[in-house]
Amino acid sequence: MKSNDEILTLFENYLAQMQLPEEPQLLYQPIIYAMSAGGKRIRPTLLLLCCDAFGGDVREAMSAAAAVEMFHNFTLLHDDIMDNAMVRRGKPSVYAEWGENVAILSGDAMMIYAYKLLRNVPDEKLPRILSIFSEMALQVCEGQQYDMDFEQLQKVSVAEYMNMIELKTSVLLAGAAMIGALMGDASEEDARKIYRYALELGLAFQLQDDLLDSYGSEQTLGKRIGGDILEGKKTCLMLNAMSHASEQDREILRTTHLDATLTDQEKIARVKAVYDRYDIPRIINQQITTRFDRALSILTTLDITQERTTHLKTFAENLMGREK
Amino acid sequence: MKSNDEILTLFENYLAQMQLPEEPQLLYQPIIYAMSAGGKRIRPTLLLLCCDAFGGDVREAMSAAAAVEMFHNFTLLHDDIMDNAMVRRGKPSVYAEWGENVAILSGDAMMIYAYKLLRNVPDEKLPRILSIFSEMALQVCEGQQYDMDFEQLQKVSVAEYMNMIELKTSVLLAGAAMIGALMGDASEEDARKIYRYALELGLAFQLQDDLLDSYGSEQTLGKRIGGDILEGKKTCLMLNAMSHASEQDREILRTTHLDATLTDQEKIARVKAVYDRYDIPRIINQQITTRFDRALSILTTLDITQERTTHLKTFAENLMGREK
Repeated sequence: MKSNDEILTLFENYLAQMQLPEEPQLLYQPIIYAMSAGGKRIRPTLLLLCCDAFGGDVREAMSAAAAVEMFHNFTLLHDDIMDNAMVRRGKPSVYAEWGENVAILSGDAMMIYAYKLLRNVPDEKLPRILSIFSEMALQVCEGQQYDMDFEQLQKVSVAEYMNMIELKTSVLLAGAAMIGALMGDASEEDARKIYRYALELGLAFQLQDDLLDSYGSEQTLGKRIGGDILEGKKTCLMLNAMSHASEQDREILRTTHLDATLTDQEKIARVKAVYDRYDIPRIINQQITTRFDRALSILTTLDITQERTTHLKTFAENLMGREK
Repeated sequence: MKSNDEILTLFENYLAQMQLPEEPQLLYQPIIYAMSAGGKRIRPTLLLLCCDAFGGDVREAMSAAAAVEMFHNFTLLHDDIMDNAMVRRGKPSVYAEWGENVAILSGDAMMIYAYKLLRNVPDEKLPRILSIFSEMALQVCEGQQYDMDFEQLQKVSVAEYMNMIELKTSVLLAGAAMIGALMGDASEEDARKIYRYALELGLAFQLQDDLLDSYGSEQTLGKRIGGDILEGKKTCLMLNAMSHASEQDREILRTTHLDATLTDQEKIARVKAVYDRYDIPRIINQQITTRFDRALSILTTLDITQERTTHLKTFAENLMGREK
């Protein structure tokens, strides 16, 4: 069995030898730029780990892993246009570097290229894996649309928010994991369990992401704390607080980020005071732990030896930044 | 065997009963709007005719036909953003109606949905048809990029132009035809011939489209003549003329559309005078006839009776607006 690091190295090597066409340059250069800008390769790593856990040959699963990574990067290209985002992974986004038309069209080509890579899945597995991939891809689009919808809505429930982040981010991790399991000849039942494992893990990760944005340490995170609060973003902290708070406190949550008389630090402190009053950090932490534990416990129910799930446990701990 | 009209009716019925999800509305409403806005359904009709010609069951090929039509409409959604085009088929474009972000994301979902539809191809045919589809889709993106590149270039050769329109428009018709033939259990050799038939036909159609824009009748076309000339567009007329003309005439071709002292009618007349001087309409007409005849003659080499190719001949004649 291969460790997370071994898998990652194999995958980076695979990507490095992948030959994209050279012409037209304005179509393919941005794809190469985006794919070689790094990122944590979370989804392909998990896909390959799942394949390996069930005793599959990770070399056979490389192109499916690359398909998932290509698809993920395609979503970033188009999201950056929609969000008007100029920076991605510390470098100019494709949108900033080449403009909107190139970002649209190169993104389109990336999505098609993902399917082209997926074609290399062995024929007998292709129908099932193609179904999973398209279903997952469509759900990611649905999640992105809900996310944009929510920006315009006055009121979003916690349940609606959880559904949105499940679609927008967790489903892709879950689909990648399931494809990997099937590439490793897991039974349909185990593949579904692996899907749930990754879905719970993805949700735990996203909740933690929201929590750290307001309560993390700037050193560990490498960015300023409180960005979501200053944007007035509807995060799980905000929506949980809105559902618990008094009308007076809800007014603070709704309006503080717009209050021009306050400094950024005052805004952050004021909103966090409301969060703290309703014990929101503890509530969210509990939700994270519940989901994380659920993910790990699913691993104990698989039809493989516990030893074979070791690296999937490590993957989960690494993703959440937890030491064993 | 089914006629063009019978096939079209069957396909429209299939589309009408297709159930897209209802939520999120801003993702799926634009797709329904685009798909029900009509259009000539050229590609799915050809796909189904090819399937039928080889004795295949057109009902089995419906979802592949819908995949091709969905993909075509996806390209229109994104092209309209890139071209800043507000009108499509006499109605506001999705871009005009819902804005850019919706047009990007709904377009993405349409492309994924096309692959989802393609999944319904019988398992044993799926690997080959998926390959053809992705290759074709990628070439369409390449063609669109070359088209945008050419707008910025001083000099484009006739050969480069022919390559661009082949990628941008003919390849989709050719891929649709080939998928249809394979759905009808055509041999690989016949499927390749059908591809060539549709490719030549697509090129003939595109050349005629350029020719009619300057030399057609406004009544038949339903739009003003000379639009390409007024835009200074690099059409096959323009590029053939540039390759034949004297330096003095080339200057006229390059600058007339920018000359503010001329009326539209004067601009059109001046450029057409240069075209006529070098016999460009006759040259292009000859190219159209050559390609059209080549397309039809390929049909005589197929491993099926001539009677079975009747509707493919009719399709070609209808597409070119030629009576039998």
